[in-house]
Amino acid sequence: MSPRSEGIVMPPAGRERAGMNLALQLARRGPRGANPLVGAVIMAPDGTVLATGYHQGAGTPHAEADALNRLGPLTRAEARELSMFVTLEPCNHVGRTGACALAIQEAGIGRVSYAVPDETDRAAGGAAALVAAGILVEEGLLGAEAREMNHRWFAARAAGRPFTTLHIAQTLDGRIAAADGTSQWITGVESRNHSHLTRARAEAIIIGTGTLLADDPKLTARTPEGVDAPRQPRRVVMGYRSIPAGAALRGDGNFAHLPTHDPHEVLAELASTGIDHAMIEGGASIATAFLAADLVDEIWLYQAPMLLGGGRKAVGELGISTLAAARRYRLDESGGDGLIRLGPDMALHLEPLPAAQTTVTGRMPASAPQGA
Amino acid sequence: MSPRSEGIVMPPAGRERAGMNLALQLARRGPRGANPLVGAVIMAPDGTVLATGYHQGAGTPHAEADALNRLGPLTRAEARELSMFVTLEPCNHVGRTGACALAIQEAGIGRVSYAVPDETDRAAGGAAALVAAGILVEEGLLGAEAREMNHRWFAARAAGRPFTTLHIAQTLDGRIAAADGTSQWITGVESRNHSHLTRARAEAIIIGTGTLLADDPKLTARTPEGVDAPRQPRRVVMGYRSIPAGAALRGDGNFAHLPTHDPHEVLAELASTGIDHAMIEGGASIATAFLAADLVDEIWLYQAPMLLGGGRKAVGELGISTLAAARRYRLDESGGDGLIRLGPDMALHLEPLPAAQTTVTGRMPASAPQGA
Repeated sequence: MSPRSEGIVMPPAGRERAGMNLALQLARRGPRGANPLVGAVIMAPDGTVLATGYHQGAGTPHAEADALNRLGPLTRAEARELSMFVTLEPCNHVGRTGACALAIQEAGIGRVSYAVPDETDRAAGGAAALVAAGILVEEGLLGAEAREMNHRWFAARAAGRPFTTLHIAQTLDGRIAAADGTSQWITGVESRNHSHLTRARAEAIIIGTGTLLADDPKLTARTPEGVDAPRQPRRVVMGYRSIPAGAALRGDGNFAHLPTHDPHEVLAELASTGIDHAMIEGGASIATAFLAADLVDEIWLYQAPMLLGGGRKAVGELGISTLAAARRYRLDESGGDGLIRLGPDMALHLEPLPAAQTTVTGRMPASAPQGA
Repeated sequence: MSPRSEGIVMPPAGRERAGMNLALQLARRGPRGANPLVGAVIMAPDGTVLATGYHQGAGTPHAEADALNRLGPLTRAEARELSMFVTLEPCNHVGRTGACALAIQEAGIGRVSYAVPDETDRAAGGAAALVAAGILVEEGLLGAEAREMNHRWFAARAAGRPFTTLHIAQTLDGRIAAADGTSQWITGVESRNHSHLTRARAEAIIIGTGTLLADDPKLTARTPEGVDAPRQPRRVVMGYRSIPAGAALRGDGNFAHLPTHDPHEVLAELASTGIDHAMIEGGASIATAFLAADLVDEIWLYQAPMLLGGGRKAVGELGISTLAAARRYRLDESGGDGLIRLGPDMALHLEPLPAAQTTVTGRMPASAPQGA
């Protein structure tokens, strides 16, 4: 049974946890980016799931609205009996979509349980608005799980910077160009088309002047049909060298040149112009700078089944001297699969492991054989 | 319907090709190693598939015997009407299993179609033996496909050397140790257990003296339960430095020290002692030497989801200066899946792309977008 269909009935014992757990599962279907992953479940007093929803990315309905849109017609008295389980505090601001607190109030839902508060400036106050409207509000159910699911998004918001997606297209031995500089194409057309889906979701794409001068990319987001996507990210070049007058990425003028090598500065500048999601396209020195500063929130790593043995490395010196200090990730299933085949290539969708899970001992089960 | 079950009926048009094609599909279920992948199908005159078989690795029945074992009781006259489609010429020697040519003759099969001749010294002569027994014999149906499926095995046999499996356990950026030498453990226990399955299939495991002195490995093949596998490969150390008296791999004495850095010499020595399948365990300089000499027939590449940014590279200089000369591979589904998850890690099963498919232009479809 699909968790989006109506008619799921939660067992009496642990009904609340089951409702929130389903909301967490639903949340993970959405893509990462400007907004956090959020899921919502509307449940009747007998445990029947009447509607579910999740957020499918910036510009689409929030999870609460998605669930409310799927709820059948109800009397005021019926609605009053319902509980909504949502993984994040409902928002209180009218952005590209309406305020969720208001929508819940208008739907007449009697009770809202949310896992974690939304501490972002723009959206906060949703719980207070619900309480003021006479709705029973509870906070904290499966809060640790909900926070962990979006741990990098919360960290980015707390730092006042955009969420970042790093793009790498490399060989099996981690090379992005051969010794003579040839790099087109390491990955195949399927991988390149897939990366355009990330471009189309991002609000900015960052490259270095080295990549600009070497490849003169257009940096437009294209649909799988090869035409420009309706929404185009801002093209951002970081570095001291100037952008040639005829550079392809000048295009329609929606670009910026930031004369710095400091990724913090770049993200601060983007944040000041309202950008919430940036894709780091490359090259290697840009990728390395963001990784070394721990400013990468997710990675799409495309791997072509080839070895070069030399040439330009995808990732440079990170200041890591011992294995215990390695940057650790996990396959991220959000928005689809964490490990996919793209023609001859593979794509890995990775997110940084939460700090509590990054110790070496955490990777050594007691049953591990000793010696090799 | 499983292709191993009886009752498949091939269409009248292209029945022969369909039979051989099914044999090719079955062959790919087997593991690579000392013996080639081989599949067999026994078909009635009306196209009904009566039995199928494939070779599951050294020491197990050949594909023809596997299929004959699944064939129900038949009269002599009935058997005479049957055709066997097999992807490789039936063998004529009695090894660990009986000669297939004799088994086919004893079963009374009237006709044998095989895709490619077996040119190895030990097994050749099967077709002649079948003809001498009055069986109708045909060669070459889907011969190119059958040869391509085992292209590296044929190449190894033609060169009189063992088939080789390279083992690599690395980070996403292709590192097998951090800058300070720490490497235990990059991959998790699931990956390490999986690599023991390859060890248990191999007849020899090759390491360099550097790995020996750094890790002092036992190099035994262990079952997933952690006990030594019943069959143990010969442990082979290549390099000039001597093996310490107390080295763990001395174990039961089933080891050899080959004072050379030349992978050709090592394989020639192993071949002279009757070894048909060697696993190259590492470290990096050994792996690089075999790769540079194009002496790697398959790779099991284990990847842990971490980045080091520095440290010891899994693959060193291969003498490749431009992308068109990259060593190219494809995911190999033989023996299971070509891309698997092992706990937090991923394993890629790779085989070298046949020469005809290794050009750069072969990776650039006409529909590829121009520019990035």
